[in-house]
Amino acid sequence: MPRVTEDHLAARRRQILDGARRCFAQYGYESATVRRLEQTIGLSRGAIFHHFRDKDTLFFELAREDAERMAEVASKEGLIQVMRDLLAAPEQFDWLTTRLEIARKLRNDPGFRQGWAERSAELSDATTERLRRQKQAGRLRADVPSNVVHTYLDLVLDGLVARLATGDDPNTLRAVLDLVEASVRSSD
Amino acid sequence: MPRVTEDHLAARRRQILDGARRCFAQYGYESATVRRLEQTIGLSRGAIFHHFRDKDTLFFELAREDAERMAEVASKEGLIQVMRDLLAAPEQFDWLTTRLEIARKLRNDPGFRQGWAERSAELSDATTERLRRQKQAGRLRADVPSNVVHTYLDLVLDGLVARLATGDDPNTLRAVLDLVEASVRSSD
Repeated sequence: MPRVTEDHLAARRRQILDGARRCFAQYGYESATVRRLEQTIGLSRGAIFHHFRDKDTLFFELAREDAERMAEVASKEGLIQVMRDLLAAPEQFDWLTTRLEIARKLRNDPGFRQGWAERSAELSDATTERLRRQKQAGRLRADVPSNVVHTYLDLVLDGLVARLATGDDPNTLRAVLDLVEASVRSSD
Repeated sequence: MPRVTEDHLAARRRQILDGARRCFAQYGYESATVRRLEQTIGLSRGAIFHHFRDKDTLFFELAREDAERMAEVASKEGLIQVMRDLLAAPEQFDWLTTRLEIARKLRNDPGFRQGWAERSAELSDATTERLRRQKQAGRLRADVPSNVVHTYLDLVLDGLVARLATGDDPNTLRAVLDLVEASVRSSD
């Protein structure tokens, strides 16, 4: 494929993804209709779905981008640092709220659930690997199985998003993260 | 008011509330339209909104019933016991998911936010009072301010609902609650 076409394709995909993220953030997952996606992205549905099969495929690709970015931080500095970064980026709250809005669909729609799980795998793998290394280094408490610590951190991430979404004070939430961090750290 | 009319009123209110709870649980907050409320409750919109002003008023009354029931447990046995009870009642998961679905509305609609806060006050007050007594008795860690512990427990409740809603294993979540409980307990 000639370079100019590749660049054009990449730019078009970027335009669609950025617009879709704004649209989901503004209207929420369910209310981000195809019509609203067209308006926010500035392209016809034909052009949009030429690049992404459907609304869910678009949504999953945004989730995959999130997971990739978070996995990089989680791998080096842990999932709690990922959460501290969320607290420091209030402009992302509206988008994050979509994570809560899809809970019912995740439980009731197996295809959606699998698509979401696949796109989130990178973050999950990075966290598992980081916890393994921390445990080996004696920095993680040894009396709780790693899968329980992992589920605990996932739960705290969801809870943090929920408290942020409903308008809790970020300073109190920062103190909560300190408490969470201390609760998984080795006490030696 | 004669007794028979009072009884009739109470039964009618109960019929509406039970039907509305099923309707919200099945369709989610946004998709529980007036038409669907009519069908699930088995009464016309005229009859329903004679007893409750609008859909939000109905929803808030269900939230108030929840808060009242949870406050009773929270007051005697603490908020973590409330969460253990949730884990033991999987038939409630669909209804609980509505808690996540209103996050965007809670942030963007001040009237809705206030209505929700008023109906949740009983649980919040019961938790505050319980934490005060636990601290006084030396059973709560003294190095973290009570409001941080309170926000932490609220966050864990929301996170628990989110993990349950998306289909996490209740046994792992039970182990997570043990970890949470240990992390707020005094270590003496």
